[in-house]
Amino acid sequence: MQNLLSNLGDTATPFLAIDVDVMDRNLSGMAEGARQRGLVMRPHAKTHKVPEIARRQMELGAAGLTLATVGEAEVFASAGFNDLFIAYPIWATPARGARLRALTERVIIRVGIDSIEGAQELGRALSGTGLEVMVEVDSGHHRSGAQPEAAGAVAVAAARAGLNVAGVFTFPGHGYAPGGRDRAAKDEAEALARAAAAVERAGIAAPIRSGGSTPTVAMADTTVLTEMRPGVYVFNDAQQVELGSCAWSDIALTAVSTVVSRSGQTIVLDAGSKVLGADQPLWVTGGGRLPDFPQARVVALSEHHATVRIPDSVPTPSRGDIVRIAPNHVCSAVNLADELVVTKNGIIIDQWVVAARGANT
Amino acid sequence: MQNLLSNLGDTATPFLAIDVDVMDRNLSGMAEGARQRGLVMRPHAKTHKVPEIARRQMELGAAGLTLATVGEAEVFASAGFNDLFIAYPIWATPARGARLRALTERVIIRVGIDSIEGAQELGRALSGTGLEVMVEVDSGHHRSGAQPEAAGAVAVAAARAGLNVAGVFTFPGHGYAPGGRDRAAKDEAEALARAAAAVERAGIAAPIRSGGSTPTVAMADTTVLTEMRPGVYVFNDAQQVELGSCAWSDIALTAVSTVVSRSGQTIVLDAGSKVLGADQPLWVTGGGRLPDFPQARVVALSEHHATVRIPDSVPTPSRGDIVRIAPNHVCSAVNLADELVVTKNGIIIDQWVVAARGANT
Repeated sequence: MQNLLSNLGDTATPFLAIDVDVMDRNLSGMAEGARQRGLVMRPHAKTHKVPEIARRQMELGAAGLTLATVGEAEVFASAGFNDLFIAYPIWATPARGARLRALTERVIIRVGIDSIEGAQELGRALSGTGLEVMVEVDSGHHRSGAQPEAAGAVAVAAARAGLNVAGVFTFPGHGYAPGGRDRAAKDEAEALARAAAAVERAGIAAPIRSGGSTPTVAMADTTVLTEMRPGVYVFNDAQQVELGSCAWSDIALTAVSTVVSRSGQTIVLDAGSKVLGADQPLWVTGGGRLPDFPQARVVALSEHHATVRIPDSVPTPSRGDIVRIAPNHVCSAVNLADELVVTKNGIIIDQWVVAARGANT
Repeated sequence: MQNLLSNLGDTATPFLAIDVDVMDRNLSGMAEGARQRGLVMRPHAKTHKVPEIARRQMELGAAGLTLATVGEAEVFASAGFNDLFIAYPIWATPARGARLRALTERVIIRVGIDSIEGAQELGRALSGTGLEVMVEVDSGHHRSGAQPEAAGAVAVAAARAGLNVAGVFTFPGHGYAPGGRDRAAKDEAEALARAAAAVERAGIAAPIRSGGSTPTVAMADTTVLTEMRPGVYVFNDAQQVELGSCAWSDIALTAVSTVVSRSGQTIVLDAGSKVLGADQPLWVTGGGRLPDFPQARVVALSEHHATVRIPDSVPTPSRGDIVRIAPNHVCSAVNLADELVVTKNGIIIDQWVVAARGANT
């Protein structure tokens, strides 16, 4: 990390820095894994929101991008990406419907629905435009998504509303828990298989069965899934390490921060929740992790302070020292930054604009 | 709330909306309370980051503004505010020192220090500029801040480094806990009294004794404190209601969101942690609250989903309905938005730019 600073110059902390070699290794490893297993890669761009990174994902064989909002899709369509899936149960108000219609005229666009009502509302705005829909099903995360057996009725409603059904998808978010990854991957495959069967029983083809999150992608059932949508893997984060889905050496993004206060073995960094995000599920060890001090714990996080306890046996950084901290949830951290600083071999080489930051609608 | 929508038009959810009448009542109530108790008001602008709101605070008698970062101070100095206190233990690298020096040439500026080393570092960059410093002390939150008895030595170091000592300050952040407000307010007064005495024993005047956070300001000890720095009160939020420091009718900012999915009494809103922030201390009831459904609970929050359980006895909103949700911590929510929509009597009347959003350095 000391190397990272060799040309830090006037760059004020705190800021988010990418180690581009680690990122490229993460990108190519995931792409290669998908290829070997015969799965289509459609990485979720909500994690990075950066066209330069999406371009690398496409060069490595991704079929297209996954987005969370129409706003994100608009940003990436404008940046030249032409095969986009909004993996979200769209509620097509007239205004949102008009924006989607405009997108269908520029790029291949596919959106999620999870109810008959949602399909009908979408059909009113988008009937006959060639818009493809994917039926979202709940595989155990109990967020959005129809029950798998209900996917047939939703698909029928979509077809009757003049939309093209492309398949089914799920997000096995309950894999974000210690020991939960295998179970969630099994649930994912089972839900997708049941949903696809329900759609096909209704006389509609469901060729695409899309799943996959960074924690569960390694155990995705390739006898069912055709496509995967991991997002976090590009950077990884503290909670992925604590879940066991990556190692410290796979962390490609950290907040570069300064020690501003110290009391014994307790230091305070200037990167707080307005830089890292405040995500802290009950099972994590604290408000982030310090890759260079794996035994340290972030015992408190406020807007501009990370309070870090360093074990007695470890030399403690002094006031003014530069320390890097990995956020618990990198998607939240990136969405707080206007730019990401790009580093390679300890040198700042570039800065990328977080083009879709705040594109929440 | 239905009124809020009377001219919603094409405004896409989710977005943050201010009820300006509630906000103005919050502003004038706090200003009047400070006046009656003889306390100087220096509201923390990190909550709103909006010059239009800071202007109202000044018109109501605030002596100046409190900020968290040099970057926020630069934004507000450029917006015409000329008496600014950065309530943070500044570590003055040469670059940050140069920015502070530029500020001293434009406005009255005051910053925090909490160590001898910090005072010396600051003196190297700012000696003789007239910069005022406030010694930060720990009153029990155990974040930054010197021990009260050490304030004298820090003040002496600052004076020797060519800085003007103005007083002492603390943030009684441990008042953010159920039943913790009274204790924290007592601790605050005791720490400030001890710190001011330590500074004065060292032969340096400490006329300003600054404290106060929204939860503790009502019980601030006016025999010790001369100044208070509440921030959240302008909008209030779900955790303030749950702490008992405000009522539902005092909530001036909510995320206006759409029901995108529903399963029985469980609904999913399109406002998630990328709109509300992910702050969720262990003692809150969930990921935010719905002011119009006080019995409902936000049982899960992900980036673009709030999963809300509505009690069986309460009519449940349908897909497509508009529902407002109060964030747990409004400072985090505002920092995610580029603009705040201003409403009055259920009509959208304006839009304010969050001018200091992301000004973290």
